[in-house]
Amino acid sequence: MIGRDLLGIEDLDRADIERILETAERMQEIGEREVKKVPTLRGRTIVNLFFEPSTRTKASFEIAGKRLSADVVNFTASSSSLSKHESILDTAKTLDAMDPDAVIVRHRVAGVPKRIADVLEAPVINAGDGAHEHPTQALLDMLTVYQEKGRIDGLTVAIIGDIAHSRVARSNVYGFSKLGAEVRVAGPPPMIPRDVATLGVKSYHSLREALDGADVVMALRIQLERSTGAHFPSVREYSSTFGLDRSKLRYAKDDAIVMHPGPVNRGVELSPELADRRPSVILDQVRNGVALRMAVLYLISGRPGPTAKEDA
Amino acid sequence: MIGRDLLGIEDLDRADIERILETAERMQEIGEREVKKVPTLRGRTIVNLFFEPSTRTKASFEIAGKRLSADVVNFTASSSSLSKHESILDTAKTLDAMDPDAVIVRHRVAGVPKRIADVLEAPVINAGDGAHEHPTQALLDMLTVYQEKGRIDGLTVAIIGDIAHSRVARSNVYGFSKLGAEVRVAGPPPMIPRDVATLGVKSYHSLREALDGADVVMALRIQLERSTGAHFPSVREYSSTFGLDRSKLRYAKDDAIVMHPGPVNRGVELSPELADRRPSVILDQVRNGVALRMAVLYLISGRPGPTAKEDA
Amino acid sequence: MIGRDLLGIEDLDRADIERILETAERMQEIGEREVKKVPTLRGRTIVNLFFEPSTRTKASFEIAGKRLSADVVNFTASSSSLSKHESILDTAKTLDAMDPDAVIVRHRVAGVPKRIADVLEAPVINAGDGAHEHPTQALLDMLTVYQEKGRIDGLTVAIIGDIAHSRVARSNVYGFSKLGAEVRVAGPPPMIPRDVATLGVKSYHSLREALDGADVVMALRIQLERSTGAHFPSVREYSSTFGLDRSKLRYAKDDAIVMHPGPVNRGVELSPELADRRPSVILDQVRNGVALRMAVLYLISGRPGPTAKEDA
Repeated sequence: MIGRDLLGIEDLDRADIERILETAERMQEIGEREVKKVPTLRGRTIVNLFFEPSTRTKASFEIAGKRLSADVVNFTASSSSLSKHESILDTAKTLDAMDPDAVIVRHRVAGVPKRIADVLEAPVINAGDGAHEHPTQALLDMLTVYQEKGRIDGLTVAIIGDIAHSRVARSNVYGFSKLGAEVRVAGPPPMIPRDVATLGVKSYHSLREALDGADVVMALRIQLERSTGAHFPSVREYSSTFGLDRSKLRYAKDDAIVMHPGPVNRGVELSPELADRRPSVILDQVRNGVALRMAVLYLISGRPGPTAKEDA
Repeated sequence: MIGRDLLGIEDLDRADIERILETAERMQEIGEREVKKVPTLRGRTIVNLFFEPSTRTKASFEIAGKRLSADVVNFTASSSSLSKHESILDTAKTLDAMDPDAVIVRHRVAGVPKRIADVLEAPVINAGDGAHEHPTQALLDMLTVYQEKGRIDGLTVAIIGDIAHSRVARSNVYGFSKLGAEVRVAGPPPMIPRDVATLGVKSYHSLREALDGADVVMALRIQLERSTGAHFPSVREYSSTFGLDRSKLRYAKDDAIVMHPGPVNRGVELSPELADRRPSVILDQVRNGVALRMAVLYLISGRPGPTAKEDA
Repeated sequence: MIGRDLLGIEDLDRADIERILETAERMQEIGEREVKKVPTLRGRTIVNLFFEPSTRTKASFEIAGKRLSADVVNFTASSSSLSKHESILDTAKTLDAMDPDAVIVRHRVAGVPKRIADVLEAPVINAGDGAHEHPTQALLDMLTVYQEKGRIDGLTVAIIGDIAHSRVARSNVYGFSKLGAEVRVAGPPPMIPRDVATLGVKSYHSLREALDGADVVMALRIQLERSTGAHFPSVREYSSTFGLDRSKLRYAKDDAIVMHPGPVNRGVELSPELADRRPSVILDQVRNGVALRMAVLYLISGRPGPTAKEDA
């Protein structure tokens, strides 16, 4: 994967995903050492180009890069010359001329990382673009499930919430399906995309049916500001119908785990009790995110990238 | 102190403080080398979690961490997902899951670092919380006085200003008292806390009496926006009564030194002349801050912390 | 140059400039290695003190410092205690007390880097101050021209745009003149400073005359918000008279190159076609900026600086 972009799980095949997960497991071992740092990416420059605010994803990439000894340079829209109306592509090309080994892009508009990747020599890693994809989130989710369950093939994964507007849902649908899981989605009708069946996914408007026999229940974050719109239910209504608590979780398998990409709206998507302890594995997801991103950075930037991208 | 939190001077005993000051003196020697860097904290991750703006404290911790070869990751409220209403504790727990070796917290509300420390595995260093404590500031003040005077035991330290709303005053009252100094405070009546006597401190409403025989005069920063309130004197009134200049400094001992935690409002707490040269030691305080914070980071994160915290 | 400030090209002599360019060429070689990093500035601290937003200059200095293994600490006005009305000089002196090896300053007011340099022990590098100077930009422009043309002596350089308000123009006028080039400027009358002849520069109000026989055409960025003023032409008027496209470029020499400090307003200073490909060398300018800034940091901070500054 040296020098290749990582724009979405849709573009990966099963072997790619498995290779990333296996590499991430080796990276986890580094995190358990006395000195949590290896010289693998020494002399490599990683650029965090975030046009949207982010705590966990940006920190996760920054820590991942530093544990591999890369130099990490952060950009946020507010501190950049974007306030001078410089176009996004010009900013990206300018950064590219400084010869980074990877550029990590987050933007609220779907497709921006792809447009940036098209003009850059450096490989681009999508850290979330609109409602399109968030591939490293899905990969860390798959890593978490694999380590909890020992397999993904044959599992049933239920994703609950605003599927239509969720890049996390979309990336996970692709990823878990490619690894042989049955993926179901559930939520209020305006939150289920019409074309969801074309992705090989079963959709439900009943939480109980969606959870029946599920090994994994993934709750998505509700955008509270959006839920006041005419077509969306109120927060109270959402919470009572699709919010998870211990009682509703009984619909799923006895050993089902609960996931959430964070940050959780406590009492909306998950009851506070469920947010904070098993069977929820939310902090494991965060922890695995660092190792997963180390794996991605290593596989993409581990040896000279620019020429490899031309070959790709 | 490996793996322990540093939330306030109140929690330390004299031996703790002396150990930190001695370690800081050894760290000063590193700052004088041709290569001002040692590999002590290589592979350690330090997180700067600042919810309030800060130049000197944040920079001081960042430089201290880097001189020990730690990786330093900065967070400020504006660039984090806190704009998505994520709760402070959730942010902290998320960062904790990325396995940092220390989390440095500043917040305008007293007690927040403690609340964060209660849920974190990583040790927490309080970099200033409301009017509660600012322990590393007090420690660098003690280091500065010790190096100027050769001792702290038996000295007289006068702290001038808005004692009631100052975390710097509170931490210094605890610290200098524990090391055997006599601590006095002075300021306009609304700026003197009612319970100050319970801290073993003498309070004065006259600058002259407070300074009589003082070895150290510490002026606090006045919050100009606060001083316009009904119970507070005007800036002009404050300055003429409690602002220090060479003439008023004659009330103190001939060899008294002048300190200020910065930034100075010139012409308010200190005359411009006094702010810029001896006997004021303001820039020495800043300089000592780097070595002091290197000592704190080394003592707290020098070896694997998380398990030590459980023992604490 | 160890320990000296770099405030403007006006202060440099031809030998200084040539030494910086030669050093930059050696730094370019580092950028082509498998591991783009050398230990030259290990243990040195570089402070980026930017009071104006900046993408390319700040990133360029940060990457340059990290490739030399320096620790780079970033400050921006918004995240610093400047929101507490701390004066700029106090901030700078505070940072100085933390013993940095270089402080890089950008400010919208001309002369601020000089005022800061006057009070600091650490050497100051001007990264752009008002309409005064932007020395590293001019140096990277000279490096780019030298590598394109094999010489600078005897070339004709035409600078087009708002000369009166451009620190890039001013620094380049000094630099190219000192290296023996003929420098011409052209733009609408309100954009040409009255004293331009005193700098040894010929001014033109006709693009055609200015470009006649030019080896290098440098277009400056137009501040769109300024161009609506009474004395300035409209954007449309500017573009039709002084905007460059392939057709107007025929006035210059056949092998003329086109430069721009970025970011380009496409269709204003340059046609989109000209902005994106030869003979424009805009991304080469950016690329050379990293090597040039490595050279400047190395020459200024390569060995202990503070004492050298006192000698200077």
